[in-house]
Amino acid sequence: MNKSTTYTARAARLAAWLHGHGVAAAVFYDAEGHRDSSVRYFTGHPSDALVVIAADSAGSPCTLLCPWDVNLAAKIARADVVLPFTDYRSDPVPALKAALEKLNIPGDANIDLPPATTYPDYRRMTAELAPRPLLCRGEGGAHQEAIRMRAVKDAAEIAALREAARIADELAGLVTEGVRRGSIVSEIDAALLIERESRLRGADGPSFDTLAAGPERSFGIHCFPSYTAGPFASPGMSILDFGVCWQGYRSDITLTFLRGTLSAAQEELAILVERAYHAALGLYKSGLPVYQAAQEAQRIFGEAGRKMPHGLGHGVGLDIHEYPRVRESAGPEEVFAPGMIVTLEPGLYDPALGGCRWENDVLITDGGNQVLTRSQIVRLEFRAYYKR
Amino acid sequence: MNKSTTYTARAARLAAWLHGHGVAAAVFYDAEGHRDSSVRYFTGHPSDALVVIAADSAGSPCTLLCPWDVNLAAKIARADVVLPFTDYRSDPVPALKAALEKLNIPGDANIDLPPATTYPDYRRMTAELAPRPLLCRGEGGAHQEAIRMRAVKDAAEIAALREAARIADELAGLVTEGVRRGSIVSEIDAALLIERESRLRGADGPSFDTLAAGPERSFGIHCFPSYTAGPFASPGMSILDFGVCWQGYRSDITLTFLRGTLSAAQEELAILVERAYHAALGLYKSGLPVYQAAQEAQRIFGEAGRKMPHGLGHGVGLDIHEYPRVRESAGPEEVFAPGMIVTLEPGLYDPALGGCRWENDVLITDGGNQVLTRSQIVRLEFRAYYKR
Repeated sequence: MNKSTTYTARAARLAAWLHGHGVAAAVFYDAEGHRDSSVRYFTGHPSDALVVIAADSAGSPCTLLCPWDVNLAAKIARADVVLPFTDYRSDPVPALKAALEKLNIPGDANIDLPPATTYPDYRRMTAELAPRPLLCRGEGGAHQEAIRMRAVKDAAEIAALREAARIADELAGLVTEGVRRGSIVSEIDAALLIERESRLRGADGPSFDTLAAGPERSFGIHCFPSYTAGPFASPGMSILDFGVCWQGYRSDITLTFLRGTLSAAQEELAILVERAYHAALGLYKSGLPVYQAAQEAQRIFGEAGRKMPHGLGHGVGLDIHEYPRVRESAGPEEVFAPGMIVTLEPGLYDPALGGCRWENDVLITDGGNQVLTRSQIVRLEFRAYYKR
Repeated sequence: MNKSTTYTARAARLAAWLHGHGVAAAVFYDAEGHRDSSVRYFTGHPSDALVVIAADSAGSPCTLLCPWDVNLAAKIARADVVLPFTDYRSDPVPALKAALEKLNIPGDANIDLPPATTYPDYRRMTAELAPRPLLCRGEGGAHQEAIRMRAVKDAAEIAALREAARIADELAGLVTEGVRRGSIVSEIDAALLIERESRLRGADGPSFDTLAAGPERSFGIHCFPSYTAGPFASPGMSILDFGVCWQGYRSDITLTFLRGTLSAAQEELAILVERAYHAALGLYKSGLPVYQAAQEAQRIFGEAGRKMPHGLGHGVGLDIHEYPRVRESAGPEEVFAPGMIVTLEPGLYDPALGGCRWENDVLITDGGNQVLTRSQIVRLEFRAYYKR
């Protein structure tokens, strides 16, 4: 299946949904402060564009792309109609108006707006596009359908994420080796190895700003700034959270490096994280509600008087955080399904002790799951210990 | 003035505005997909938090911070009241409800919500906080006031941006030297030098993902991916767009490297960009409407049958893109004011020829302006030429 067929097939699936739900067109919009990878999912255009997917009276799809950079669109995107965004002062309101006219959408047909549409923009749109019926739904609309479509990866997406996972593992190995040898002693040493080596392997780069937190900074869930010239993998607990983006698809792993003699309380943090990881992994299974795995991890932490201040995991794909969110508050209808790729990342953080997180990417299969990455909690002194 | 005083002074200024405009409290919210650096501007907390700034009946300020990471907040943020966001399932609606109660905001007092509030969230808030009067204004509210406050930098902010500018210049010099010597031959060579050397100088890192586009990719306004293992500063036109973040404040410069014998059409692009730069710089003056500079640049390009597909400049600060946006469509009330720091970045792009952009950061002063950075269009062969 070539790429163009991939995009038309996705648009056709969404158009069928629109047709079945009485909606003539769905609007997707990506801009600074308003990112939406569905623009890329349906057209291949990476960002900064308005996309309208319309279903005609027979449910057939038509994709209109209104990109900021028409040169880039001409080289890499797929759409039936292209309108330059700058013709509309890069304002989504007149651009949308023109797009709906160009697509001959009847004036009384339902239009699904992005749920991320701001309240002031929604008011402008309803005023300028009146009397068109504009829907803007947090749930039940075309955007939730797109998010659910994207949660279950097709074969090409799974292949891309496997490659993103494989390279992340390779780089984790290089960092671990560097830490053991002493060639990696600062946070920038670790992070820049990932920046460089990911691109040398043909990847787009890291999945997100690599988080490299030495012992002084690992207490933060997401350390800030993301990495500094300070020490890494020095005595104590250091966290390395990163991923690799391969053809737009993002892996996500976290290693914790334990160096030197830890206090009993620090050791306990690490052991609790490992226990929660293994217990929850058994609940990453097709058909099980995602909240069960999150509850199990929190139960283990709670017994030790600890609490994890974040969710247990999330889908990965074109975005680093996708549906489903594996958390206690998830509804019972949010269940693992074959083809989902979801992180498993228990973590505990203490201002005095530091933090510990362990994260891998898990493919949900028909029978259970397959862990795509091989990150670990790395005990740097244990190797010498076993050699004795 | 210590940092804590900085934050209380800013909150006091906003509270005075609130008091004068019949608003009891303004809500700021920073989360994934909903970034707002005003959270940092008013509290020092870098991200992922809800902030409420309230004015009491005398106009005195009270700052409430509801952060995702309470450990981080305890170390670096300033607020009068702190509520852990996770106590409210990291959901801004119950968190806001609790915050307004904690602050004893009367039930009939006006509350300014972020203009970036989505339409579905706005509906949830009005339902769950009824009958509180909730305002969500694109213009005229506390958020526009905060944006205008932030546009004019105070002395500490100017000092931080000067340092961010100084380091960016230093790194531009290192890249230029490396390109001349041949130690920088790929996009990652240039970008990773910036990643590393910025942090070694104590900066937070680059201001944004460095854009390094060799001749094959410089046709894109913002090349995608941001940098690759491909050639940089090879024959043709290469663009390097980057900045340095110093204590949260972001400089932003662009160099274009011209290598080898360019076609007459390519030379013309570069010369047009230089002409537009110099003409527009004379219009970066206190009291002048910003649209005049943008019009002048477009006029010069238009005479040559070219068009710049983006704005001429933008404020810089805690965000890389701040008020004012220097563009033709800006209103006559948008004028340059002393203390603003604004980029000047004319650029032209052609799918066949490549692209050329030149960008510096300009401080508006009482008498005119001061260019804080020293980036250039670098003609790599000219040095040898002059030596002859």
